[in-house]
Amino acid sequence: MHFVGALDNVPGMRVILGLFEGVATGAADGYARMAGRPAATLLHLGPGMANGMANLHNARRASVPLVNIVGDHATYHSQYDAPLNSDIETVARTFSGWTQRPSRPADIGQAAAAAVAAAMSPPRSISTLILPADVSWGEDALPAEPQAYPARQDVRADLVGSIAKLLMSGERCLLLLGGSAARAGALRDAARIAAATRTDVLLETSVARLERAGGLPPIARLNYRAGTAVRQLAGVRHLILVDSRSPVAFFAYPGRSSDLVPEGCEVHVLSTGTDDAAGALADIAERVGAGPGQLVPVSRPARPAGALTPSSAAEAIGALLPEGAIVIDEGVTSGGYVAAATAAGPRHDWLNVTGGAIGIGLPLAIGAAVAAPDRKIVGLQADGSSMYTIQALWTQAREHLDTTTVIFNNRQYSILRSELKRVGATEGPKALDLLDLSRPDIDFTALARGLGVEAERATTAEEFTAALDRALADDGPRLVEAIL
Amino acid sequence: MHFVGALDNVPGMRVILGLFEGVATGAADGYARMAGRPAATLLHLGPGMANGMANLHNARRASVPLVNIVGDHATYHSQYDAPLNSDIETVARTFSGWTQRPSRPADIGQAAAAAVAAAMSPPRSISTLILPADVSWGEDALPAEPQAYPARQDVRADLVGSIAKLLMSGERCLLLLGGSAARAGALRDAARIAAATRTDVLLETSVARLERAGGLPPIARLNYRAGTAVRQLAGVRHLILVDSRSPVAFFAYPGRSSDLVPEGCEVHVLSTGTDDAAGALADIAERVGAGPGQLVPVSRPARPAGALTPSSAAEAIGALLPEGAIVIDEGVTSGGYVAAATAAGPRHDWLNVTGGAIGIGLPLAIGAAVAAPDRKIVGLQADGSSMYTIQALWTQAREHLDTTTVIFNNRQYSILRSELKRVGATEGPKALDLLDLSRPDIDFTALARGLGVEAERATTAEEFTAALDRALADDGPRLVEAIL
Repeated sequence: MHFVGALDNVPGMRVILGLFEGVATGAADGYARMAGRPAATLLHLGPGMANGMANLHNARRASVPLVNIVGDHATYHSQYDAPLNSDIETVARTFSGWTQRPSRPADIGQAAAAAVAAAMSPPRSISTLILPADVSWGEDALPAEPQAYPARQDVRADLVGSIAKLLMSGERCLLLLGGSAARAGALRDAARIAAATRTDVLLETSVARLERAGGLPPIARLNYRAGTAVRQLAGVRHLILVDSRSPVAFFAYPGRSSDLVPEGCEVHVLSTGTDDAAGALADIAERVGAGPGQLVPVSRPARPAGALTPSSAAEAIGALLPEGAIVIDEGVTSGGYVAAATAAGPRHDWLNVTGGAIGIGLPLAIGAAVAAPDRKIVGLQADGSSMYTIQALWTQAREHLDTTTVIFNNRQYSILRSELKRVGATEGPKALDLLDLSRPDIDFTALARGLGVEAERATTAEEFTAALDRALADDGPRLVEAIL
Repeated sequence: MHFVGALDNVPGMRVILGLFEGVATGAADGYARMAGRPAATLLHLGPGMANGMANLHNARRASVPLVNIVGDHATYHSQYDAPLNSDIETVARTFSGWTQRPSRPADIGQAAAAAVAAAMSPPRSISTLILPADVSWGEDALPAEPQAYPARQDVRADLVGSIAKLLMSGERCLLLLGGSAARAGALRDAARIAAATRTDVLLETSVARLERAGGLPPIARLNYRAGTAVRQLAGVRHLILVDSRSPVAFFAYPGRSSDLVPEGCEVHVLSTGTDDAAGALADIAERVGAGPGQLVPVSRPARPAGALTPSSAAEAIGALLPEGAIVIDEGVTSGGYVAAATAAGPRHDWLNVTGGAIGIGLPLAIGAAVAAPDRKIVGLQADGSSMYTIQALWTQAREHLDTTTVIFNNRQYSILRSELKRVGATEGPKALDLLDLSRPDIDFTALARGLGVEAERATTAEEFTAALDRALADDGPRLVEAIL
């Protein structure tokens, strides 16, 4: 409460209210992905932190800088084990790179500065500052100077040299790009290297922030489905990790390997999250004598007509996507169609669910919109995932954010139906009922209006395209429900 | 997924889908409070468990039996640290009395039986069974027999005797009742003891399940506000804990004591959660020669007219509360009025938020309705709290549960405004904006309809009473939004 009270005493603080802590943590992730610096969340004791934890899991996997302030009981109050008491520190350590619980007001300033510096230190991570009430309301606190943190390191020249040699060896190589290598410059250099050396290039399955289209080389992502990923990697002799991790299956499946690296393939690490991946790729491009690279022509699909399907909805989005949009992809089974329909479109950023925890899309849109107020946010939302943090729409309305959300309403957890098949489990009526979202059908336009967001429902491709057009023309939050 | 598939192979399993894990865990708590035995939740890896954790915190504080099944990656898959991987076990141990992660299919049956027995062993607690995918789909699993668990113990006769003597000593004594002492028999015996010995009786601030009214003695609860609680306890010389905990302030406040026990007051423990509190009270009543006790006449407030306020809304609920209702109190600042207006009404159960984590009311209603299908569930919901797990309405519709939810819509976090005052923090515009739920106003009737629940809005006492009357007459879920 004293932290809340102090917000009015510190100039430059922008305060954004969420109706649920998962909204706040997902928004902080979205802010960090676009701004490259941390937002702070304010969470209320253990249960408040727990409510924000699934999206903190995603943020950890996104390697973003983020600072949690977790208000805790007064130091002398904890011994009484009052109702809200719980073991905050043990839980916080499971997702935080830095955790501290200052015990004197004099330590708060330094702790806050250290939290920010730790979050910003490559490879970027979550800092959690647990703030006991009496430490917060005590008298001797002093502001601290910002602390320095290290920059990304240059990749050693001999490593760059040996990878460059490998790429020119004629053996089949593949560059797997992730993290900081998913930005325009690195993607262009990777494509130039590929053209000069006949190397293959892929992106990791989930990328925190991918710059794409608008003339950038179209680089495929490693497929979420392990079977497809295995085919993408077949025959590769040298897999070179560029701020990415050695590919593994999202889940284990009976009788299938978890490790997706083909037999006989050697894995090389060019750069990790603490290295300058873009610099290393530029260096390699020079060493292999890469050409200038080709500008890919920009094109859009035509406005679709007829039935509204994941595919025609994707064409509509491809036809209308504004230049400079930020696409939030929690479309799950429907998101892939949109990725294809926008691959050659105008330049945009693409933000994935990085940790597999659903319920991040609507919050992520909030943070991205706050970080990039001049850009249009286009949210692709699976119906089931959106219901995890539907409260986020209210914050979008409250802050008048420039967000257009598309709900792909197929009235089921479609991805779970395919997972059920894939693991070979029985598909009886009770099992299938657990994957069904009809009975009753959810009316997303009613939910949006209840939370202050204008919404339309579309049942044909034409209706959807027209509704999306109107939504994108507005500068405030809108929702379009696509009945699939 | 194999667990989901197996649901169709085991007769007698009732499967209830929630749109968010906090709905499932809160529902399991509500089921346990009314049925006295555990429901099982099925949670998906670390993030799924995290989403359910705030309500598991409440369940831990309610001392209910509950079994979590947390699906985890295959044992051999964890080493690859796939996107959904996290430290489930460390987190689970912070709220579970029993945690196990079987590593062979042959161990699952015994582990499941042990989980249930541990949950049922007094004082009742949460068991978490972490189920790796390959252990789940493996071949050698065998069903296990249910395991025995201990019953509550009789309180030692010498302790009962010495407390009885104390109560007759003429010194000022107070019985503080909680847990199993909040049921009809124990409450009657406590009142009989009070009448015979001039002992005071109070209930703990938050009780998992309180039987009240319908002729039961009206016993006040220790107030949530520490200042009021201190006045309630002033002058007490002997505080006797009957399945309750020594009273402490909910939060610490500058310059105030956390321990609410008056100076010079001795604290005696008659029974803990592992003891038979009701038996001990009956025994004491006999030893002090208590009379038969008085039946309190049942009466209801009249139907209110005029402005809709927390007080008139409470009168309407008091006027209409069905016999045998189960009241779920997450009304926060509005709930107290209803407690007063129903204190002399027909018999009902009253379920509190036990751990201070908001967002449990709507889920708790689900579990209570499933456990007690012949009883009407009346949910008292603060607007801010209800938005934590508003998704629960959909499950109420899907299961056609007999739940009537009243939303007290005052468009603010009213309790936080008083906490801000109470700690003496600055009340500037940014601080106050964080406690404000207007901008935009939430339309709860639209939200309810979007989730398949019929809803009405009321702005006067007459409208509210009529809408509540219609809602209670329905045997399915209804919502009445009271604009205060």
